[in-house]
Amino acid sequence: MRNAIKIIASKMRPFLKLVLSLFFERKYLEGRYFDIGYDGYLWALKSIWIRNILRLGVPRPWPTGLTCHVSNAKNIFFHPDDLNNFQSPGTYFQNFKGLIHIGHGSYIGPNVGLITANHRLTDLDAHEDAKDIVLGENCWIGMNSVLLPGVILGPRTVVAAGSVVTKSFPEGNVVIGGVPAKSIKMLCSIDSHVLQATA
Amino acid sequence: MRNAIKIIASKMRPFLKLVLSLFFERKYLEGRYFDIGYDGYLWALKSIWIRNILRLGVPRPWPTGLTCHVSNAKNIFFHPDDLNNFQSPGTYFQNFKGLIHIGHGSYIGPNVGLITANHRLTDLDAHEDAKDIVLGENCWIGMNSVLLPGVILGPRTVVAAGSVVTKSFPEGNVVIGGVPAKSIKMLCSIDSHVLQATA
Amino acid sequence: MRNAIKIIASKMRPFLKLVLSLFFERKYLEGRYFDIGYDGYLWALKSIWIRNILRLGVPRPWPTGLTCHVSNAKNIFFHPDDLNNFQSPGTYFQNFKGLIHIGHGSYIGPNVGLITANHRLTDLDAHEDAKDIVLGENCWIGMNSVLLPGVILGPRTVVAAGSVVTKSFPEGNVVIGGVPAKSIKMLCSIDSHVLQATA
Repeated sequence: MRNAIKIIASKMRPFLKLVLSLFFERKYLEGRYFDIGYDGYLWALKSIWIRNILRLGVPRPWPTGLTCHVSNAKNIFFHPDDLNNFQSPGTYFQNFKGLIHIGHGSYIGPNVGLITANHRLTDLDAHEDAKDIVLGENCWIGMNSVLLPGVILGPRTVVAAGSVVTKSFPEGNVVIGGVPAKSIKMLCSIDSHVLQATA
Repeated sequence: MRNAIKIIASKMRPFLKLVLSLFFERKYLEGRYFDIGYDGYLWALKSIWIRNILRLGVPRPWPTGLTCHVSNAKNIFFHPDDLNNFQSPGTYFQNFKGLIHIGHGSYIGPNVGLITANHRLTDLDAHEDAKDIVLGENCWIGMNSVLLPGVILGPRTVVAAGSVVTKSFPEGNVVIGGVPAKSIKMLCSIDSHVLQATA
Repeated sequence: MRNAIKIIASKMRPFLKLVLSLFFERKYLEGRYFDIGYDGYLWALKSIWIRNILRLGVPRPWPTGLTCHVSNAKNIFFHPDDLNNFQSPGTYFQNFKGLIHIGHGSYIGPNVGLITANHRLTDLDAHEDAKDIVLGENCWIGMNSVLLPGVILGPRTVVAAGSVVTKSFPEGNVVIGGVPAKSIKMLCSIDSHVLQATA
């Protein structure tokens, strides 16, 4: 299957993209997984099978894994190079009211939650006003972590596994972790263009 | 699909309930999701498709999402107004021996575990005697938290995301959090009837 | 279904194993779930249905649940008595580069991650060199915990729910927990042969 797709994709990307654009928005069928590698085509076929045909989840305008939950496809912004994050199992993008911005080159681990709106404490059936979540470029959110409403992480912020991020760390180049997350270690600054170039 | 169900449900709730009662216990086909809104019908159809037809999980007497695990349907007690908690992804109600009581109006986040019986430390293949878990009314358990055997939470206890609750907090009107969970903040008391009335 | 399998399995284990060996490696169709009990047969049928037929996940050489992710089936070592761990929902065995050894009699809870390779901090698209993870016999990893690269746990190490294990605890007979995990309690030593005998 994997090899068949590799061979087909290598010869006829434009045709495959045309077919996939029946299911997904064209702007997501770009980037390293569709123009350089071929994982995107595999994820797209799986997503069509799981969501459009078997109806095991709501179809989204980009390929999305079985256990990745996105509340509102219109309220999330990311580069198609980062489609891998929506194959990460158990992730929960709660953005039915607030926006989520994922910086280019960021990685989101399994079972991670990004929550833009809390329940209202005086009436749990309602939600507080949402606060957007913003990840800078080249962030990495470790497995089983949760980011709470309004969290802004600067470029190259690493969130250790199992963290609960309750406040913003906008400065970047830092490892944070713990419950609640605190600064653990500064990283020596790397020009993000260099970082991209080494990718 | 959603709109079709909305239209059909608005005109013929009794008939739909009759059909659904072939798959679910009648007492769960009540409350705000079946008598006021229509989400219950949508969840019921999904649950029948996923569990009764595709056999991707054990069918339960109430609509249950793909990745919600309940060890023993007989050992859990909740109001049908709170069926939403069983659509919460990655949840794990480990109650094959102990009982779980969920107070009316409580919310349980994704990837939350409610564990009533630990493994026995002198023989991991066996389990300790179970201890029931009791949530009062209007509790809210944040994403990725775990409640351990015997935990009793008073009404309107808020458990912060990523917490591990090892002991009871029966007083209510409190925010707890951390690993292990500690009291973080008292909430000013609201008469729970008022709370219900504002829902 | 369960009873049918029980009856069939009790009379014709060799025949069933022959059929299942079309889908799984023979060495995994042994142990307490295939030779004493019958859960293995049930898990095997589910796994064939979910992975080989419905293609909801990559088929593995042993029965694997819907939401259990194993990066590389060749890089994990365990006794078939412990096949239950691959029915544990939301688990994530990240071992595409490093090895994972699971000691006999160990239990791994839901949503647990065993990570053998971190992203490289100077280039998140790449991974650091992997470091193997080794669990001794009779370990128990509580729900929502994460074990990081290189972690070695001695026999009968209990990891409390929601822990993040960042370093090794090779001494065994200990309860560890927290973020990051620290030693909580020593357990009185039990000869592991006795422990097995009481299983």
